[in-house]
Amino acid sequence: MSLSLKLEHGIELDCGVVLPSVQVAYQTYGTLADKKDNVIIICHAMTGDQYVASHHPVTGKEGWWSRIVGPGCAIDTERFFVICMNVLGSCMGTTGPASLNEQTGKIWGTDFPPISIRDMVRVQYAALQQMGIETVKAVIGGSMGGMQVLQWAALYPSVVESAMVVASSPYQSAQNIAFNEVGRQAIINDPNWHQGAYFHYNTIPEQGLAVARMVAHITYLSEVSLNKKFGRKIRPQSLLNQASRQFRSGTFLGNIFEVESYLHYQGSMFIKRFDANAYITITQAIDRFDLAAEYEGSLVNAFKGTGIRFCIVSISSDWLYPTAQSRQLVQVLNQVAANVSFVEISSDRGHDAFLLDVPEFEMVMRGFMNPRLA
Amino acid sequence: MSLSLKLEHGIELDCGVVLPSVQVAYQTYGTLADKKDNVIIICHAMTGDQYVASHHPVTGKEGWWSRIVGPGCAIDTERFFVICMNVLGSCMGTTGPASLNEQTGKIWGTDFPPISIRDMVRVQYAALQQMGIETVKAVIGGSMGGMQVLQWAALYPSVVESAMVVASSPYQSAQNIAFNEVGRQAIINDPNWHQGAYFHYNTIPEQGLAVARMVAHITYLSEVSLNKKFGRKIRPQSLLNQASRQFRSGTFLGNIFEVESYLHYQGSMFIKRFDANAYITITQAIDRFDLAAEYEGSLVNAFKGTGIRFCIVSISSDWLYPTAQSRQLVQVLNQVAANVSFVEISSDRGHDAFLLDVPEFEMVMRGFMNPRLA
Repeated sequence: MSLSLKLEHGIELDCGVVLPSVQVAYQTYGTLADKKDNVIIICHAMTGDQYVASHHPVTGKEGWWSRIVGPGCAIDTERFFVICMNVLGSCMGTTGPASLNEQTGKIWGTDFPPISIRDMVRVQYAALQQMGIETVKAVIGGSMGGMQVLQWAALYPSVVESAMVVASSPYQSAQNIAFNEVGRQAIINDPNWHQGAYFHYNTIPEQGLAVARMVAHITYLSEVSLNKKFGRKIRPQSLLNQASRQFRSGTFLGNIFEVESYLHYQGSMFIKRFDANAYITITQAIDRFDLAAEYEGSLVNAFKGTGIRFCIVSISSDWLYPTAQSRQLVQVLNQVAANVSFVEISSDRGHDAFLLDVPEFEMVMRGFMNPRLA
Repeated sequence: MSLSLKLEHGIELDCGVVLPSVQVAYQTYGTLADKKDNVIIICHAMTGDQYVASHHPVTGKEGWWSRIVGPGCAIDTERFFVICMNVLGSCMGTTGPASLNEQTGKIWGTDFPPISIRDMVRVQYAALQQMGIETVKAVIGGSMGGMQVLQWAALYPSVVESAMVVASSPYQSAQNIAFNEVGRQAIINDPNWHQGAYFHYNTIPEQGLAVARMVAHITYLSEVSLNKKFGRKIRPQSLLNQASRQFRSGTFLGNIFEVESYLHYQGSMFIKRFDANAYITITQAIDRFDLAAEYEGSLVNAFKGTGIRFCIVSISSDWLYPTAQSRQLVQVLNQVAANVSFVEISSDRGHDAFLLDVPEFEMVMRGFMNPRLA
């Protein structure tokens, strides 16, 4: 079942543009208490979506955190009412570049305004108000989801009771901006890009989007996990003595090593479910994210006096959002005497570990969600 | 002055193809001793060239190791005769995909056979024989150059006296294969690629080649060096409140952060000097490199009984060829009781540090080249 609501009040974005209305697609799990006091907000990652614990309508895959969210799970849907909204700018039902601009009757495309992580959170907050929900037990998210959690905590400290930031950072680093820019360039160099108006041509910049996904996917894994998974394993029928012929027949490229074929697969799956303009819009929102900059250059200002209980989780082999960036955040939270715990999960599976079966992470989550208060 | 020689004897490649003749472009520095016993071979990196200590004919830039090679330098051209040859498959004068195939009278293009690092070294050895040189004081190289050094040492142990391997590895890791494949895909997705026959259309796959260079360039730097160099610095005239308009006018992309503009510059410079087919050919040669595989799966077999004096140098912040890979090599050389020293240079400048002004590296090089033997 797909849920959706429409924000009819204009949303003013950081760039100054006012979106007259915003559609918000979301999923819920569990039952809202009569007092509406058992709400958990889960914020999804860059190319994630609201299907946290239900099958994805396009790929048919299980929810991306179905291990974590459900009856008796670390986030127990017998106690909590979990809401996950597709972020502004995305393409799974919430208003984004692939949506119709109601004022013009045309697809937004590259006319969609640039957005920020703060804009995403403002939209979520407005949606929550429309649902009549005034407080949130916890806001939880990994990667770009963690950035939204930080933004929630900074913007709405009286709404949020606790906040869990997983494999994330209070700012996007230069290296990550660089990787995102490589992906964007691959997209706009695709002959099917058509200045972002590919939908007019009934095509999509498949190859560019696939390359963008490939480079991003490398950053989600660790060198160790890639070595364990693939090493230098060669695909059958790709032996060097056949390479010459294959090269001539044009089938040579990208067909030698298993890691290549795996990346191609990742790329080819991704283009079925994600819009290229949404990819550009969201990666740019991430690249602009620098929470301190919104508070006169100091994260301390963002969290001064906060009553929120924080849990910051990093992954030891994550080189996209390395532990050092989580530590910076923890130091700031300590400076403002916030209630904060910090765990570095030992895993060699890289950034993606927060989506995988890592018992230590589940245990941390369970502890955070079930504190003994007496 | 450009030097070049032609190997008229056929060169049989690992793929089984015999190249009937090979042109080898090279540069020399210093004077060959009468006994021809003062030769140093320098092996260049992936997109490097023979212009070690002289100006590049296309870019006009200083030689890439002019700090290291010259009169009185660590590699002292008053004592040594330094030779650097453009590798097989490249595009600076040595036979490669952009060369004419003498048998057909046409440009090789994608008909150029797949090559290996071993093929590159065989060509260099044949060229040396043609010069009448029988022994080499040292073979030295960084990155792909270091792979060639290892191959030299394994293939011609009686020719090579000492070998220095800098920021390199005895094999290409899955992560590095993955990054190279992203670059290749960007190239072949370029509308100007024309199945590799772009030269027939008087064009080059500029944008794809630039993206390939961008992603590679990120791997040459460290996160710390990117942060120091650029951090999240925003370009003038790219403020967020202008972003909306810029996005609409199509100039928005890639023009916000300084790191983006730097990468674009790197990409745009690269396409002036490097052939796309050569890029594909050489990255594939690197990806195939796995020295142990040539010796029944054991590096020990590659170096058993070697009399070569080795120096292995890694860079602490190099994540392309991390120190761990150099250590593996050192362990093997210890296992065969080789004469080997190992230094990890402390630098936060990433893989590229071996090309930069890093005094500790120069000192190590000077020591290695000027041993006190009594």
